[in-house]
Amino acid sequence: MISVEKAQEIIRRKARKQEAVRVILKKAAGRTLAEDIRAPFNMPPFDRAAMDGYALFAEDTKKSPAILEVTGEVQAGTMLRKIKLKRYGAVSIMTGAPLPAGADAVVMLEDVKEIIKSGKKFIKIFREIKQGENVSKRGEDFRRGQIILRKGKIIGPSVLAMLACAGIKHVPVIKKPSVGILSTGDELRNPGQKITPSQIYDCNSYGLFGQVLEAGGEPCLLGIARDNFVSLSNLIKRGLKHDILLISGGVSEGRYDLVVNVLKKLGVKPIFWKVAMKPGKPVFFGIRGKTLVFGLPGYPVSSYISFEILVRVAIARALGQSAPERTIVAGVLMKDVKNTGDRSSFLRVNCVCGKDENYVYPYERQKSGIVSSIVDTNGLLCLKSGEEKKKGTPVVVEIISK
Amino acid sequence: MISVEKAQEIIRRKARKQEAVRVILKKAAGRTLAEDIRAPFNMPPFDRAAMDGYALFAEDTKKSPAILEVTGEVQAGTMLRKIKLKRYGAVSIMTGAPLPAGADAVVMLEDVKEIIKSGKKFIKIFREIKQGENVSKRGEDFRRGQIILRKGKIIGPSVLAMLACAGIKHVPVIKKPSVGILSTGDELRNPGQKITPSQIYDCNSYGLFGQVLEAGGEPCLLGIARDNFVSLSNLIKRGLKHDILLISGGVSEGRYDLVVNVLKKLGVKPIFWKVAMKPGKPVFFGIRGKTLVFGLPGYPVSSYISFEILVRVAIARALGQSAPERTIVAGVLMKDVKNTGDRSSFLRVNCVCGKDENYVYPYERQKSGIVSSIVDTNGLLCLKSGEEKKKGTPVVVEIISK
Repeated sequence: MISVEKAQEIIRRKARKQEAVRVILKKAAGRTLAEDIRAPFNMPPFDRAAMDGYALFAEDTKKSPAILEVTGEVQAGTMLRKIKLKRYGAVSIMTGAPLPAGADAVVMLEDVKEIIKSGKKFIKIFREIKQGENVSKRGEDFRRGQIILRKGKIIGPSVLAMLACAGIKHVPVIKKPSVGILSTGDELRNPGQKITPSQIYDCNSYGLFGQVLEAGGEPCLLGIARDNFVSLSNLIKRGLKHDILLISGGVSEGRYDLVVNVLKKLGVKPIFWKVAMKPGKPVFFGIRGKTLVFGLPGYPVSSYISFEILVRVAIARALGQSAPERTIVAGVLMKDVKNTGDRSSFLRVNCVCGKDENYVYPYERQKSGIVSSIVDTNGLLCLKSGEEKKKGTPVVVEIISK
Repeated sequence: MISVEKAQEIIRRKARKQEAVRVILKKAAGRTLAEDIRAPFNMPPFDRAAMDGYALFAEDTKKSPAILEVTGEVQAGTMLRKIKLKRYGAVSIMTGAPLPAGADAVVMLEDVKEIIKSGKKFIKIFREIKQGENVSKRGEDFRRGQIILRKGKIIGPSVLAMLACAGIKHVPVIKKPSVGILSTGDELRNPGQKITPSQIYDCNSYGLFGQVLEAGGEPCLLGIARDNFVSLSNLIKRGLKHDILLISGGVSEGRYDLVVNVLKKLGVKPIFWKVAMKPGKPVFFGIRGKTLVFGLPGYPVSSYISFEILVRVAIARALGQSAPERTIVAGVLMKDVKNTGDRSSFLRVNCVCGKDENYVYPYERQKSGIVSSIVDTNGLLCLKSGEEKKKGTPVVVEIISK
């Protein structure tokens, strides 16, 4: 039995980063950046108006009210024209348009009164406008050549916006690792099939399917293998074509020999079998060629949590991330908890935001068979072997998706 | 100008829930449940072994060491046989298999010594086994008829597992609202196109695309409308076929008349225009038939945040959720902040987990043009008009995806 940290370290070392591929911008949503992205230009490319209004010399508004003659217009998207602003002049300008030469501030449309006098247009301003007011300086968002996005970053909405902003149409992303998922057990049936009272539905395949999707992998359901050599061999052979193979069930004491025999016959080299975690002790990890093989416990909650704690490390590495991206929150424990066992215990908890602090409620029913314990909670709290925490002490929770 | 709360309330009232559709289980990932789901049976359906081992009468282990004769075997997935356990007998049992009649506990494989004596098999147990030990009671996860999942729930991995566990193959989900996205502005170009220094790339379409995806909608990029009646009419007409239409740019003072004239000509009824928020004041909201129309500000950060604060309310409602699902975290403010304006201010912040508490760092550059401010932060902190918060005070942050 090895520690969780040791198991994670081995997985981290054995997992290989996938290659890079280029995808069109909108297909990059949710993917992971394969390269650092450098700004191809300054943003903004020029000093520009941050508001609709009039570009002017700030100094000309020192005397209040100031009256300035409107001598021209600059619209966004029109080519940078050689408009030169004269002293005591103002140029009508739209948000985003380049400032005319000389101008150093913009007064907002709402802050002026427009006057027409003998066919000429003037604006009246009632307060002093500061230099730089309502102006976005050249390069203030990013400068040409600067790294604006780092490789390994997940492409969420704002990253998508940033890529577009830099004009990037084809995005270098990491290829998604393909993850084969199979369940084992004579007692399992597929959802939708009829069952007898002694059979149960295969829920692990679907939980893992959702987890792989969320982690950024490409899940592939391989089906249910029966508890015999032929059935297991057939499905595992198919599974070994993937970058990662998840075998749910079949690695507890009673079934281990059968499954691991098949794996060995198919050339999978066992690396470790038991991890000091609860739930999830019987986790097998092995390798054949480029394929990482995980044997996960059959209990739904054990399968779920061993995926979060171990398999996600492999997927994160395959995606070129240093660790799985997860929100981590400190909160106050609302009940005494104690881990009397010899394994790290991952308690399912609810982390709830109060007015001043976050409250962490351990779920009542922590058995590995209770699927509701992962549906009705939003976080994991790790207690080391022998660790005890009293109500009222601060703890750190990893937020996991339902 | 109306308050953020008022605007949200109007949107909530006007948004209509989409119809329900049925999709196959694995296609349900990320969707929203349209109906309450009731358990079709008890889970577990019978008292079953929680571990591989031997089923026995707990009472027979009072005397230690106890020696029991192994009289049979029950495997998972085999039909519930009428094995009856005799006193001082034990039955070999696999995890998940039904307990034989009479048995009330299971001793783990690791905790016994197996002995063969005159052709018979016995087990030796060195400690007292408690009644119910390693047994999962019938219905302890859920009982037949009980609501196991509520409508409006987002189908994450654990919900997927729960649906499978209940044997559900076709899942009632809410139809995704289709969201048309168009940007307006003569200065905009598509990523990949060549630009002159006075032009910029359309980044809002892509940011909104990612945001819609993440909120559970079906985004559709309509392209860029130019600042003229014909171009705007053409694209807006196409956009009005969607459940929600997002028009980015074109609702600030300088452009409002043109865009709103087109909208009115096409039968869109204006509901509100300005919302007391910063960034994001010029947000237009209107309706035509079943289509909700949002005019969003042209600045990337304003577009981004007005989507999060306003449009997401519409999408959540369309999906039958009472409000957008977002992680909310309390933390300690690390810098004085003050909102001197007359609008609610949404500061971009970084919420970082420390050992005992979470630290909230307001981002240095809060201007609406700075795209990096949404890429490099993970949360929003709302300050009401006139509100001031000192370093060290607790604040509540909404975590938003990058």
